[in-house]
Amino acid sequence: METHYLDNSATTAVCKAAADKALYMMTDNYGNPSSLHKMGIRAEEEVEKAREIIAGTLSVDSREIIFTSGGTEANNTAVFGAAQALRRRGDRVIVSAVEHPSVHESAKRLSELGFDVHYAPVDKDGAVDIEALKALLNNKTILVSVMAVNNETGTIQPIERVSKLVHKLSPEALFHCDAVQAYCKTPLKPQKYGVDLMTVSAHKIHGAKGAGALYIRSGARISPLLYGGEQQKKLRPGTESSPLIAAFGAAAAEADIQADSGYIRELSSYALGLLRQTDGISINSPEDALPYIINISAEGIRSETMLHHLESAGVYISSSSACAKGKRSYVLEAMGLSDSRIDSSLRISFSKYNTKEDIDALTAGLRTGIATLQRR
Amino acid sequence: METHYLDNSATTAVCKAAADKALYMMTDNYGNPSSLHKMGIRAEEEVEKAREIIAGTLSVDSREIIFTSGGTEANNTAVFGAAQALRRRGDRVIVSAVEHPSVHESAKRLSELGFDVHYAPVDKDGAVDIEALKALLNNKTILVSVMAVNNETGTIQPIERVSKLVHKLSPEALFHCDAVQAYCKTPLKPQKYGVDLMTVSAHKIHGAKGAGALYIRSGARISPLLYGGEQQKKLRPGTESSPLIAAFGAAAAEADIQADSGYIRELSSYALGLLRQTDGISINSPEDALPYIINISAEGIRSETMLHHLESAGVYISSSSACAKGKRSYVLEAMGLSDSRIDSSLRISFSKYNTKEDIDALTAGLRTGIATLQRR
Repeated sequence: METHYLDNSATTAVCKAAADKALYMMTDNYGNPSSLHKMGIRAEEEVEKAREIIAGTLSVDSREIIFTSGGTEANNTAVFGAAQALRRRGDRVIVSAVEHPSVHESAKRLSELGFDVHYAPVDKDGAVDIEALKALLNNKTILVSVMAVNNETGTIQPIERVSKLVHKLSPEALFHCDAVQAYCKTPLKPQKYGVDLMTVSAHKIHGAKGAGALYIRSGARISPLLYGGEQQKKLRPGTESSPLIAAFGAAAAEADIQADSGYIRELSSYALGLLRQTDGISINSPEDALPYIINISAEGIRSETMLHHLESAGVYISSSSACAKGKRSYVLEAMGLSDSRIDSSLRISFSKYNTKEDIDALTAGLRTGIATLQRR
Repeated sequence: METHYLDNSATTAVCKAAADKALYMMTDNYGNPSSLHKMGIRAEEEVEKAREIIAGTLSVDSREIIFTSGGTEANNTAVFGAAQALRRRGDRVIVSAVEHPSVHESAKRLSELGFDVHYAPVDKDGAVDIEALKALLNNKTILVSVMAVNNETGTIQPIERVSKLVHKLSPEALFHCDAVQAYCKTPLKPQKYGVDLMTVSAHKIHGAKGAGALYIRSGARISPLLYGGEQQKKLRPGTESSPLIAAFGAAAAEADIQADSGYIRELSSYALGLLRQTDGISINSPEDALPYIINISAEGIRSETMLHHLESAGVYISSSSACAKGKRSYVLEAMGLSDSRIDSSLRISFSKYNTKEDIDALTAGLRTGIATLQRR
């Protein structure tokens, strides 16, 4: 059976350039990047080359990039690192109600540690409610975290606007943006937006699982999450995963935002056209969402039931997000969707490797699913 | 020029089985292990298979193993996780004076956070001074961390004896053992020894940089270091690096402690024979050290000078450890070595891929180095 992998927001296939690079780093250029001899320096050069590439994709200086084990670690480093570094200046932390669990749960932990944590509400499209955010921002605020693109719906957040507000109303605060789902899919210019900390991840852009990066604006001071050796200016000690970091660089170098996103926009329009013609399907993503993600509901059919029906046709999608492992979506809840919409929600997510045939297989599967599974 | 890589305690070349497995996980079995569909389940099966393998090498249950991004994260998780979970029962934390920076610096951080941190001294061989440790252990002690094998000298610590003492004199304490340099090189049975937490790492045993594991005894409660999704019972959220974890399993499955360590013992004896015949070389490792590491000094020649001289002959070794990036060794200092011995110290470390030819190249290089570099 043919595979129609439409779960690219969960993870992507590693591209050839990245896989080749990882293999080369494992078997040939295998030195420890911290070693003082040539074998170390050769490995270090690849790590630094990757750092330059990632920095380039964000239009920042490579000294502002630290590598982590992925998006979760980068988000934790940003949230705990900022809160720890600034706790003498205030105790308020604000995150949007629709953040990824790695921000959401970190904020919850800060609350247990005595910080004054607030979750900024979102509108029916999942975008941060600007007036509500304004009301929360004060001069005791030390950290605000709002993602660039939501991982379940593709909702694009008004990052530049939020950033300006944060710096105006909360001059002590650092502004963190989890850009994992936006990275290499839409242009990101943290410096221009006034973003202090930005998280990106390799495995959503055809790099491998186990590498991410955190942009830390030059001058922004955060505490490390990990303590140890002298690596990465002690901000992130531990032997760098040179295979995955170099592969991350290779994947980022291959990304062509304009060409790729143009192609995905075409696929997405094609899919939306077919989905809108399908009785029993409601679209949960807003009109102006990032085209890489379409969230839908087939009301009356539980997400997992439809997911397994589609799987039997070789079509792979998600019920909400992979990280939630089937738990109820607090993102769709925050958008005010009805229980029946939430319990039947499905996430379709594209990559440049997808074709219209994948979408045809998806819509065919949805249609037979709706015809045979409803009200069971 | 031929390469004589004798820096295997810094990192190792990835073995074919591990590299093949990583490649397979990147390009074929690339699903997200948390995804509910078959693509996720296939990836999850590989992660769980690796967990079984690692558990098997430690004679523990696979539910007692969590995967991390490496030794540094596993050590941080153990130290901060135990201190956090037990802080209501006491505030004393004891680590040996010769721990790896990822334990040493974590302990220092705990001290800044108000914990009562003590560094247990070592004898001239680098082994923990048992009487001094006894005097430090009290009923306010919540964590003791002593490594299995020292990363600079190969000194084997009396883990089982320390463990018994800890549990007898400090019943509230968790005992953590950083076994990164011992893993797959000498049998490790944490359960039998009464070790509560044990750290191991992939890239020291021909796995790839970026994967490690922490054994957490069933019943031992620690707080997580990272917060986020539902992965690994929320003890270590974040998408698992399925390529590196599966590769870690493949590398561990290939290790044959008896055969490998027998071969290394032979190599080490051969090297020690030649080194003892070399004028100007002193041996810093104790007689009964793990044979994988030999620490020597060529007094009068700075470590880095000799390191670069050897490099020019294709021989790669370390000055102290890679993680220290050329900083002065606090391990050798704790053993009471003279400044001139410390400043000229070198670490030779073996893997099963080494041959007697590598050792011949090393000793030839050391001899020309001593003849030409002394007193410069």
